[in-house]
This record gives sequence, C-alpha cells and structure tokens, in this order.
Amino acid sequence: MIDALSNDTEIRRAAVTARPDDEPDTTLARVAWSVIAEPGDGVAGALVAQLGPVEALRFALSQENFGLAEKAIHDGRRRWMPRAVPRAIREALHGATAIGAGLLLPGDVDWPVALDDLGDHAPAVLWVRGDISTLAARSRVAMVGARAATAYGDAVAAELSGDLAATGTVVVSGGAYGIDGAAHRAALGVGGGTVAFLAGGVDRAYPAGHQELFERIRASGALVSELPCGAAPTKFRFLSRNRLIAALGAATIVVEAGWRSGSLNTAGHASSLGRPLGAVPGPVTSAASAGCHRLMREYDAQCITNAAEVRELMGIEELPAVMAESREDPERIRLLDALSTRTPRSPSEIARIAGMAEDSTRSLLGMLSLEGSVARDDAGWRRAVG
Amino acid sequence: MIDALSNDTEIRRAAVTARPDDEPDTTLARVAWSVIAEPGDGVAGALVAQLGPVEALRFALSQENFGLAEKAIHDGRRRWMPRAVPRAIREALHGATAIGAGLLLPGDVDWPVALDDLGDHAPAVLWVRGDISTLAARSRVAMVGARAATAYGDAVAAELSGDLAATGTVVVSGGAYGIDGAAHRAALGVGGGTVAFLAGGVDRAYPAGHQELFERIRASGALVSELPCGAAPTKFRFLSRNRLIAALGAATIVVEAGWRSGSLNTAGHASSLGRPLGAVPGPVTSAASAGCHRLMREYDAQCITNAAEVRELMGIEELPAVMAESREDPERIRLLDALSTRTPRSPSEIARIAGMAEDSTRSLLGMLSLEGSVARDDAGWRRAVG
Repeated sequence: MIDALSNDTEIRRAAVTARPDDEPDTTLARVAWSVIAEPGDGVAGALVAQLGPVEALRFALSQENFGLAEKAIHDGRRRWMPRAVPRAIREALHGATAIGAGLLLPGDVDWPVALDDLGDHAPAVLWVRGDISTLAARSRVAMVGARAATAYGDAVAAELSGDLAATGTVVVSGGAYGIDGAAHRAALGVGGGTVAFLAGGVDRAYPAGHQELFERIRASGALVSELPCGAAPTKFRFLSRNRLIAALGAATIVVEAGWRSGSLNTAGHASSLGRPLGAVPGPVTSAASAGCHRLMREYDAQCITNAAEVRELMGIEELPAVMAESREDPERIRLLDALSTRTPRSPSEIARIAGMAEDSTRSLLGMLSLEGSVARDDAGWRRAVG
Repeated sequence: MIDALSNDTEIRRAAVTARPDDEPDTTLARVAWSVIAEPGDGVAGALVAQLGPVEALRFALSQENFGLAEKAIHDGRRRWMPRAVPRAIREALHGATAIGAGLLLPGDVDWPVALDDLGDHAPAVLWVRGDISTLAARSRVAMVGARAATAYGDAVAAELSGDLAATGTVVVSGGAYGIDGAAHRAALGVGGGTVAFLAGGVDRAYPAGHQELFERIRASGALVSELPCGAAPTKFRFLSRNRLIAALGAATIVVEAGWRSGSLNTAGHASSLGRPLGAVPGPVTSAASAGCHRLMREYDAQCITNAAEVRELMGIEELPAVMAESREDPERIRLLDALSTRTPRSPSEIARIAGMAEDSTRSLLGMLSLEGSVARDDAGWRRAVG
C-alpha cells in the first residue's frame, strides 16, 4: 500500500504539505499506522520499532512470511488489513489540512520524548491543533478527575491548576466535564499553558458542551490526539488516551474520583510508568473523593493539598528542608506551669511544684525574666501577663 | 523516707487497703515515685528498673554515693527531694480512697503491658476510677484530635468510634473537648468500652465542662492517670499524658488536627513506639484537617475513611484480599464500541471499525450474543439495548 499511497499525487502532496522537511514516505507510513491500528497496538508498535514505519507497513500489509510471521503478526495483519485503504489515509490528511491541524512524528523537535516511555505502546503520530510547542514545555503536570465533580473538587482543581500554570507548568488533562474542564479553564484563566488529549479526532469537540472551551485551548494551548481527524471517541479510545495524559505529565494528580472512576485508570498508567502520583483528599463522607482516598491507600499516592506540594512531587522545586521544629524545653514548660500570674512564689516553692532542682529553677527564672516571661517583686516570682 | 512511710500507721493502713495482696513497702514506694517524679522521668524509671521501687527510693533520697551518683542521679535527687514529704504520699492515698480510685502497679494482672513499651518512661503507677479491666481489654485503639473540631470531625469520630466500640474495641482518648469527647461519647453510646487518660489526678474533672462525660466514663469505662489525686493538669503533663494514650492503643487514629495540634504529639509518640498511625482526611480547605494531611505526608500515616480500615491497620481483622479487579477485555470493549443499537452491521464492517480480525470478531459476536449483549437479525448485528 505504501507504493499506492506514494504514487497517489494528491496524497503525496498532502504529506509534503503536512511535513515539508520530511521524507513523504515516512509521513505517509506513520499516518497510515495511525489509521489502521487502534491506539496502543503493541504489535504494530514493535513492528515499527524493529523495521521503521515504512518497512513495517510494507511487511504488515504483505503476505510475506520469512518465518517472521508469528501468530501476533498474523493476528495483527487481520486487524489492520480491513482498514488499509488509501481513501482513509487521504481523508485523515485532508481532514487535518482543512482545520489547520499539525502533525507531529516521533523524533520531531517538538515531539514530547516523555511519550517514548510508553515503548511499543507509544502513539504513531500526534495530531495537534493550537500551539505545538506547548507539548514540549519543560514542566508539565497531568491533572484529572471525575466528570461528576463537586463544587469542592472544581474549586480545588481550579486553585491547583491556576497556581501551577501561573508558575510555568503546563496542565495536561482530558477535556472532560468536571475536574478536567476546571483544570483547563484555570490554566487558561492565568494565561498559562494547557494540553487537552482527546479520545477522537481533533476535529471533533467531545463533549459537545466543551466546544467553546476547546476553542480557547486551541487558541492558547493545544488540542491533541493520536487518532486521525474523523475518528470517533469510543470507550476503548478514552481508556487508551489516558496513557498519553499519564505519560506526558511529570506527575499525575487526581483531584476527585469516585471509587471506580476512569481517573483511576490514568493513575494506574502513571504508576506503571513510574510517574509520581498525587491525590487530593476530601471528606470521607463524599463519594467523589473515595477514589482519591483509595489511591492513597492502595497505590501509595501522595496526599496533595496545595500547588507547592505538587511541585515537590514533580521534583521541579525543592521545598525548603523542613526545619527541625523547635521543641520547647520541658523544664521551661514545667517552670511556667508552676508559676501563677497572681500569687507570688519563692524559688524553692516553684522548684517543688515543678519537680525541678532549686538551682536550675533559679537560673531558669533568671533567663525567663530577661525574656520578660516572668516577673519578680519583693513577695516572689510571678508569670508575666500577656 | 520509705521507713518513715512504713512506720506511719495511717499511711501503712492506707497502702494495705489500696493493695491488700501486695507488700505494703512496694505499694508505698511506687506511690511515692508517682508523687515525687514528674511523668516520664527517665532517670527515676531507670533507677526503679535497676533497683526495684523500694531500693530505688531509698537510694534516691539518701546521700549514698557508691560511685553510682552520676550527674543524672545527682540532678534527679535535687528534683525529687523537695517533694519527698510523707504528707504528700498520705494525701495521694487518702484522696484515692475518698473517691474510690483503684491503684494499678506494673506486673498486676490488669496492668496493660503495652505501657511497658515505654521503657524507663513507663508510669510508676496508674490511678483508675471505674472498671479497671477495661484497661486490659484485648483490643484497644487510640482516637484523638483537635479540641476545635468541626461538625465533620465530630461526625467522623463518632462514626468510627461507635463502630469500633460496638465490635469490641476499647476506645482510648484524652477526655478533651472536640474529637476526644466525640470518640468517648460514641463508644459509651453503643455500650462499648472507653478509657480517658487525664493529665491531672483522677479526682479532677478537666475540662470542667466534661464533668458529666467523665461520670459516664467512670460508670462504664475507666478514668486513668499516672498522677496522684490532687495533681493539677499542666501543659507538661498534657504532653506527657499523650505518650500513655499512644502506648495503650494498638494503633492511633487522628481524626481532625490543626497544623500544630497537640494530637500530632500523640501521633509522634505512636510513631516512635512503632504503633501504626492513621489519619482521617478532610477538605484541603479545612484548617482542622491540615494536621491529618501533614501526618499522611510527613509521618506516613495511613489514610483512614472507615472503621474497617482502622481494624485492618490494627491487624485485628484481615480485610478480604482485594480481588484482582476483573479488567474488561479490550477486544470486547472495542467490539461493543463498533456496534450501533440502531444501524445493523456486517461482521466485516464491525471488524474494520473495531480494528479487529474478522474471525475473532465473529467468534466474539457469538459469545456476546449468548450473553445477550448483542443481537442479530437478517440485516446484521446490533448492540442490545439495556
């Protein structure tokens, strides 16, 4: 098929337009892979890693055997073949051109190398609307959560995301209602960067009620998908998309999540990628926080209460080492306990009440009187007021 | 002094009354230690451990040297001497007799051996009002928290304590306003056992507003202190008392706590005793939960949301091993994604949409139709409704 694509003038021209500096066959082969394989297809990924996209495609769509055609490849061919039609590749390219979506390939300057941690499950390409450089920002955090967020969750997501975005961290999320939306909006609100990974093509606003939000993200952040224009968001693609959110963030923060929330899937990806995981606690009486508490208990998620703690988790900012808290001297506490603000007492009386030696009582009284904590007159010692 | 005490008929009679089965000198010496040394006095504890209470007292109050009088002993003597008057010991015994308080000594059948984990900082005696056997209950949990509790904290403390007490766990706390009070009340409310460790003598109701609560605890649980009757609660004694709460509980649960709450001191004791530590999360916007979140972050406290999780932490009840959650088969999700409830599709069309091989599509369709998830008619396959 690669030859058919390469020989199709219109398709070839579209490929050159999409990536002027690239070998059009590579562009076409990667686009073809994004069309014929479902997200995260590990057999496709392994094949591309081994042979390069062009040869992998040629091999995948041929009946060549060479003793290499293990069962996995055999099964893969049967998944890919039904979709391997030049029209689908042409539509993907035309769809992108029509809305001005860019195409990122692994190895590109702006390709987020963090996604390479996904190995054979890394995406074949990324389709991007908006500012491609947002993806390559130095500091990125994934912030996700329940669609059915509470006012508390919305407020915390907005607080965290706004603070992080204002200090230069790009906020990555999934564009859904609830926590995702609150995180995107707060980042935009402070003029910060934000990335929404979509489960369908970047030409599709899903959910439809976020059309305006997506337009704002496109204008000052990036809408991204590994699926070509025209691809519908499906349940499988939502779950696959979560691995990209987790991989792109230096850490993943779950703000609110029910006991079986999809956000736990994102958290699971972050965890298996070795990315630090944070969860925001909430009332134990709130079902919308049950998933967060579960992450703390079962996934060792760090308890997150503010943006500084997120930065600490990301390792981008060391918090000042916690000072050994000045412990109050026990004798000092006992001596002050033994004094009255009204009744004057002698040092020996104070020593007995405090259970201290008389000479240390006397010397401590002297120090405390310099501090102004105690006062003496002819009748004896008293605790100073105020 | 031990001889002076032993020869004072009235004091001796009081000692025999308090502990009929015991050697009165031992009783008197331990009571004397509880009067002359402040709680947790490690030098006193070490001396008693080395010489036994009677000899330790004799040595402490003599001027004997024997080359043993290191600086610590020397300093100790000067703390203890001013309080070593027979009248104070007589008053302690009389005060206890007057209110019917019992006296527990280390080694007694009902002595809670958990306190021995405090080593040289273990109490010399325990003065107990109420049911002494409550202290020796098989299962005990420490539950503490802020005096300035919120309605949320009160409700969670009541829920946890009520559930634990109803299932046979004695709830140990400090008798303070707020979380402590809610925990005691809920335990009493379900007819369970509860222990309040006081920072002053058991004859003193502090805070005064808890007089009625203390009366209820005395009637069906236990009011306990290491300090003799008449001793005033001081700041130092509140802090020292916390070590007893932490040591008596098989685990310590902090329900609500401000950033610098005294409950963190109890948590610190639990931690250094190797007792499991739990903290109840709350809204990150609530100052009353800030200390709990801090315990999770800095002390590795376990996130606690219900009583079953407390029991798990205490190790008294294994939760059923978390079942490996049945992950949905990805092909199943993709196939269902590819079906419409209205438009019938052929297996080859479904295979292409789902990105699956046609034969696995056919066999999965067969399985799903047995389940009733899909339906076929002459026009093709559809997703079953409902």
